[in-house]
Amino acid sequence: MVNIAVLGYGTVGSGVVELLEKNKETIKKNAGKEINVKYILDIKDFNGDKYQDKIIKDFEKIIRDNEISIVAEVIGGATVAYDYTKRLLLSGISVVTSNKELVATKGAELLKIAKENKVKYLFEASVGGGIPIIHPLLQCLEANNIKEIIGIMNGTTNYILTKMITENISFETALKQAQELGYAESNPDADIKGYDTCRKICILSALAYEEDISPDNIEVKGIENLTLKDVKKAEEKGYVVKLIGYSRKSDSGNIEIMVSPCAIKKDNPLANVNDVYNAILVKGDMVGNVIFYGKGAGKFPTASAVCSDIIECINTSEGREINLREDRIFIAKPEFEILEGTNLPIVGEEND
Amino acid sequence: MVNIAVLGYGTVGSGVVELLEKNKETIKKNAGKEINVKYILDIKDFNGDKYQDKIIKDFEKIIRDNEISIVAEVIGGATVAYDYTKRLLLSGISVVTSNKELVATKGAELLKIAKENKVKYLFEASVGGGIPIIHPLLQCLEANNIKEIIGIMNGTTNYILTKMITENISFETALKQAQELGYAESNPDADIKGYDTCRKICILSALAYEEDISPDNIEVKGIENLTLKDVKKAEEKGYVVKLIGYSRKSDSGNIEIMVSPCAIKKDNPLANVNDVYNAILVKGDMVGNVIFYGKGAGKFPTASAVCSDIIECINTSEGREINLREDRIFIAKPEFEILEGTNLPIVGEEND
Repeated sequence: MVNIAVLGYGTVGSGVVELLEKNKETIKKNAGKEINVKYILDIKDFNGDKYQDKIIKDFEKIIRDNEISIVAEVIGGATVAYDYTKRLLLSGISVVTSNKELVATKGAELLKIAKENKVKYLFEASVGGGIPIIHPLLQCLEANNIKEIIGIMNGTTNYILTKMITENISFETALKQAQELGYAESNPDADIKGYDTCRKICILSALAYEEDISPDNIEVKGIENLTLKDVKKAEEKGYVVKLIGYSRKSDSGNIEIMVSPCAIKKDNPLANVNDVYNAILVKGDMVGNVIFYGKGAGKFPTASAVCSDIIECINTSEGREINLREDRIFIAKPEFEILEGTNLPIVGEEND
Repeated sequence: MVNIAVLGYGTVGSGVVELLEKNKETIKKNAGKEINVKYILDIKDFNGDKYQDKIIKDFEKIIRDNEISIVAEVIGGATVAYDYTKRLLLSGISVVTSNKELVATKGAELLKIAKENKVKYLFEASVGGGIPIIHPLLQCLEANNIKEIIGIMNGTTNYILTKMITENISFETALKQAQELGYAESNPDADIKGYDTCRKICILSALAYEEDISPDNIEVKGIENLTLKDVKKAEEKGYVVKLIGYSRKSDSGNIEIMVSPCAIKKDNPLANVNDVYNAILVKGDMVGNVIFYGKGAGKFPTASAVCSDIIECINTSEGREINLREDRIFIAKPEFEILEGTNLPIVGEEND
């Protein structure tokens, strides 16, 4: 059994705890061991919560507990989370996180500390929520020189832009709707001004080009001043408007980075990424363009990535074993509705 | 230095050899060691070839050479390739491959032999060419129960279907055009009859549901009898036709698999996957739908995946180290054409 602690019991933190419980068996199989959440750290009270007996307020209890070998930091921000992460890594405890602000600003330092202390600092969830992007970039594309990254990486702004385009409404009206639906925060600056996108493109660019890239050096343009006129103009000309985090390595070796609303041709696969979905295009010199698409935020998608990093910490030296059962299984042909007037099964409909 | 051998010097084999040369420095950095192609095995003669001195016809030379620790098998088929792969694994040599036929039919057995002999059998390139799909499925989504896979996994048929739809031509005419352009083979059965798609959906399903799934058990319907009438009918109703490899785990635990031309609603992201591109949608119970998109075939995209597996064989016990340079780099804002009448940079245009 592996004992872990979860720092922060907000949306993502509670998602991690619930996911580990819900998919206990699958995770035990894939990690080779059971994962037990021993502590949940949060400054708030959670009276009557299912996991109340695990919730503590004293971080020292976690760092002093020799049974804890992995910690999920989902507090967010770069102050307390930075302090805790650093101390944990220095104490020989691996840390996994969804904290894009901390990874973007202090990632290089924390990776170095992790390496020196022979532990892991993993952050798959910091970009694209549950979409696998960091591991594929580092592992599966490692025979490539990465040339360019184009990302729609903020669900809030993509939702607002989709509304502006499809419902022909102003930025202000769309933002208000997004806030009412809980897709935008009451203070939406980090999203709409592009800071969130900037942190994510900095994380991906740092890994792709192996340079320590700070968000402080990047000029960021959000969607807060985007007019419906611009959106319509783009539409007329066969383009859609998306908030893009962009980077490329120029032939001279410079790294060029931009965060800005951009026009994308309608037949580009990125143009069809709507609502709260994210997509990240990575161009490798050998593989060409590959795109990773999915829900870029949300409780369980993000928890999915955090938990896969927890499992990786456990599997780290060996990698996951693949064992295919060879016993007889029943394989059937699935039933689908047939498109009227044809004999074509209709697939890909949302059914839940 | 790590010595490897490449079995088969066709499109993919020559791509692997060229890629290892072109991206020597990047690969050396990511693998931590230089990779040297010591032998290339092929029954044909390649007089005047740049690597002629490495080309041999005797497999025994490779398996008897103690310096060889990794072999890339890109012969294809399940006869000679099966025999060689088995013997290599039994001799303690790791094998990486793009051979979907062999992986689909003998994957479970070969994985078992690899495990018993403490070596690797990796096959990222066997599905989706250069698109990272197998590693993300096994590693990044491992906290999920996989519910469903919907894949456009054959470039040839997708090219033909795209032509039928956009140019309003019959299957026969589109096939002829594809053959003239080299996108379809003179004997196109494996592609158009759906066998290739079947192998790939079997590989992904086996890994996702951890069952040994043989293509022999699957009813396969290709696009060879698809009429333009069906395609138009789908179009009228707001659908496009794609050759889909489909699988899901039903609530009763059965695995349902299908290979068939299917109708997909136009607003589904899979509907916009055109020409020789592939896309694979994976539905996890926690992460929801994620899609992996890119070129599903071709010399360098496929070689990209084969080479990432070679690097993984080398890095296996430790995983790739991430070292971010902290020296000052020049970060610039990229220049883009601005969409006329707006202030929006146009991104995502094909420029090479």
